[in-house]
Amino acid sequence: MRTFDARDVVARKRDGETVGDGDIEAFVRAFTAGEIADEVAAAFLMAAYIRGLNAGETLALTRAYVSSGRTIGLRSIERPLVDKHSTGGVGDTVTLVFAPLAASLGLAVAKLSGRGLGHTGGTIDKLEAIPGMRTDLSAEELERQVGRIGCAVAAQGADIVPADGRLYALRDATATVASIPLIAASVMSKKLAITSDLVLLDVKAGSGAFMKTPEAAAELARACIEIARAEGRAVRAAVTDMSQPLGRAIGNALDVAEAVDVLSARASGRLREVVETLAAAALTSVAGAGEEEARTRAARSLDDGAALERFREMVEAQGGDPRVADDPGAVLPVAAVVHPVASEGSGYVSAVDAEALGRAAAALGAGRRRKDEPIDPSVGIVLRAGIGDLVEARQPLALVHAADADAARAATDAVRSAFTLSGAAVAPPPLVLGWLE
Amino acid sequence: MRTFDARDVVARKRDGETVGDGDIEAFVRAFTAGEIADEVAAAFLMAAYIRGLNAGETLALTRAYVSSGRTIGLRSIERPLVDKHSTGGVGDTVTLVFAPLAASLGLAVAKLSGRGLGHTGGTIDKLEAIPGMRTDLSAEELERQVGRIGCAVAAQGADIVPADGRLYALRDATATVASIPLIAASVMSKKLAITSDLVLLDVKAGSGAFMKTPEAAAELARACIEIARAEGRAVRAAVTDMSQPLGRAIGNALDVAEAVDVLSARASGRLREVVETLAAAALTSVAGAGEEEARTRAARSLDDGAALERFREMVEAQGGDPRVADDPGAVLPVAAVVHPVASEGSGYVSAVDAEALGRAAAALGAGRRRKDEPIDPSVGIVLRAGIGDLVEARQPLALVHAADADAARAATDAVRSAFTLSGAAVAPPPLVLGWLE
Repeated sequence: MRTFDARDVVARKRDGETVGDGDIEAFVRAFTAGEIADEVAAAFLMAAYIRGLNAGETLALTRAYVSSGRTIGLRSIERPLVDKHSTGGVGDTVTLVFAPLAASLGLAVAKLSGRGLGHTGGTIDKLEAIPGMRTDLSAEELERQVGRIGCAVAAQGADIVPADGRLYALRDATATVASIPLIAASVMSKKLAITSDLVLLDVKAGSGAFMKTPEAAAELARACIEIARAEGRAVRAAVTDMSQPLGRAIGNALDVAEAVDVLSARASGRLREVVETLAAAALTSVAGAGEEEARTRAARSLDDGAALERFREMVEAQGGDPRVADDPGAVLPVAAVVHPVASEGSGYVSAVDAEALGRAAAALGAGRRRKDEPIDPSVGIVLRAGIGDLVEARQPLALVHAADADAARAATDAVRSAFTLSGAAVAPPPLVLGWLE
Repeated sequence: MRTFDARDVVARKRDGETVGDGDIEAFVRAFTAGEIADEVAAAFLMAAYIRGLNAGETLALTRAYVSSGRTIGLRSIERPLVDKHSTGGVGDTVTLVFAPLAASLGLAVAKLSGRGLGHTGGTIDKLEAIPGMRTDLSAEELERQVGRIGCAVAAQGADIVPADGRLYALRDATATVASIPLIAASVMSKKLAITSDLVLLDVKAGSGAFMKTPEAAAELARACIEIARAEGRAVRAAVTDMSQPLGRAIGNALDVAEAVDVLSARASGRLREVVETLAAAALTSVAGAGEEEARTRAARSLDDGAALERFREMVEAQGGDPRVADDPGAVLPVAAVVHPVASEGSGYVSAVDAEALGRAAAALGAGRRRKDEPIDPSVGIVLRAGIGDLVEARQPLALVHAADADAARAATDAVRSAFTLSGAAVAPPPLVLGWLE
């Protein structure tokens, strides 16, 4: 038997050679067991970033991540199980709407989510803005709740793909995050660790996303699809626009309020459009619905309150205050100061820097730079204009929700600079750029 | 003032961009101060390995290494100071002969050396095979001894280029050693940290060296020369053959015995040829001698005992037993078992795997795999044939000097396999492949 030599694996990837499945598996296992030092793993990650990983290596890495922890079977669920993953974006509250909407359509969603890091928000942080809401469900609680009401959103425990968690922290420290195969392995390992009948991927493209162009986003989508195929998991991927924030809210309580607005059909905009599109795709894929019928059913569930009712049940099941579904403003924490950011000139909005807004919201306290920083659920930004809108001078571009006047003032310039105005009319960008499967 | 961001430096090198002098200096300073984690430095090293460093970056790295520690001025030395560096090889005992030879020719050599690692030997380990020999000279002791007898060979203290020491350990762990700019910065920082009027580089090319081809060795030589030029340091570089071990001995006491053989003109072979060539180059460069005259003077110093006398004085000055110069066998530690390795067939030696022999000697106890392993000064290998020699079946190819019969037996196969025999006559390879300056 050949002995495994971590440095030899690093050297082969360094030289652009292909590393065998067994060596990748052994490397990840030894790293997770603490037998490979962080610096050796960091050297491997940088070599993989620069030299790339082929489909076989990416699959082997994904499998090694999955087998580093436990998996969740969900055997008792009879409805079609749909999992959904959006690659990190700004103002992205898809999960909070999608899960109850899909449940209201007869599907089941058992979603494990993460917390926010850097300029992107995290679903778990958003849910925890609801007073009383629990996200640390055990696998058994998760399964029971999904069986009963069709949806649950819980924090991904440390026992699911722990190798990915440890390597992600290392990638974050060593400038090796934005690698398509490394991202694909990270995303898909989390999807493969829990049973589903369909994985829906929402891959963001644009200034606010890791993938800056639709081409790069499509490449990431293809890498993910290839992994799913090899594992026999059904998958569909949409490339969606993140050249501006998806929803109007960037924050945590603010995001919940926006989700409730969409679930109760008070808001119709980009967030509703993406969620409807994803729900319709799920219905056509796992419930045999026609495309138009699926879209109609999804819209109806939002319009007639069925989706909102599932949301209320989900919140209640997880210990949260269900009145959030009726009157978010009365239940959610509210920022001390709400400060309008007035436009200095007039014109058509031609660009909105989503990443800059994400950073400004994080600076207000809505996000965290380090994994263990506390956040303030009440603060954030609510946009009043998007690409294509005509704004007049002194008209508000956004509202800053801040803990105090100083913080609000500090955010104002960053928010204003995130908007670019143009004299000529600008067409809003298409939202769903394409589907891959 | 721009704040320094280590991860940003890593990202720029990752993307193949040029990192500015100030950022390289700040990175090395922060790493040496423990403010940059090993994994971040490892990611930088891998990016630098794959993307390369240009001449400016290599020079900035070298300067950062030098300024991480103290430098040695040697202001009181009036004779021309010649420093010599051989890039790691097998059976390479050049320093032990060169330093006293140069001193006997009116030059001064203040040499800081290292210990062996992996399959290559280290000068300090060899010297310490001489009973009583001290190598931990202070800078003052070094200068005094060189002023008095013209030569000293001491261990490089931890206060000289400490950044290089720490980064070298990291490179060794992360498969990032064999990078020409990283090697050049490492070699030249040690040369620049101590005053000299001429740096002579002996860059090895071949199976037993880091640089496997003469072209790669020349590239390393050019990178080193460029650094020396930028710092106003005179330099000459020879590319010499390491397609087989340089000398006949691979060990520590065995190397000292071979050095004494060359110094007393009992041995004339490849080791003597390289040392004579380097000494003559030094004489022509810093003492204005003509080429032929220089070569004649160097040969005479070996033949008439002048060089041997300096060696005796150096050993005595550093506390060692000076009788080693007259009768090495009586003074040096001797292995318990000497075991001949007989040739199985007959033919002309067409290849000798220097790296394999280095590993076999290390396995016998002559070298170390980890920095702090003890070594056995008595053991090693003495070769009885080199490329071009005709050997008959059952004639010894080498003698294995081992601690016991088991170790000797274990080494025998490796030593035998290191020799390739050919039916046709083979010309020995040229020793000095070229000079660069």
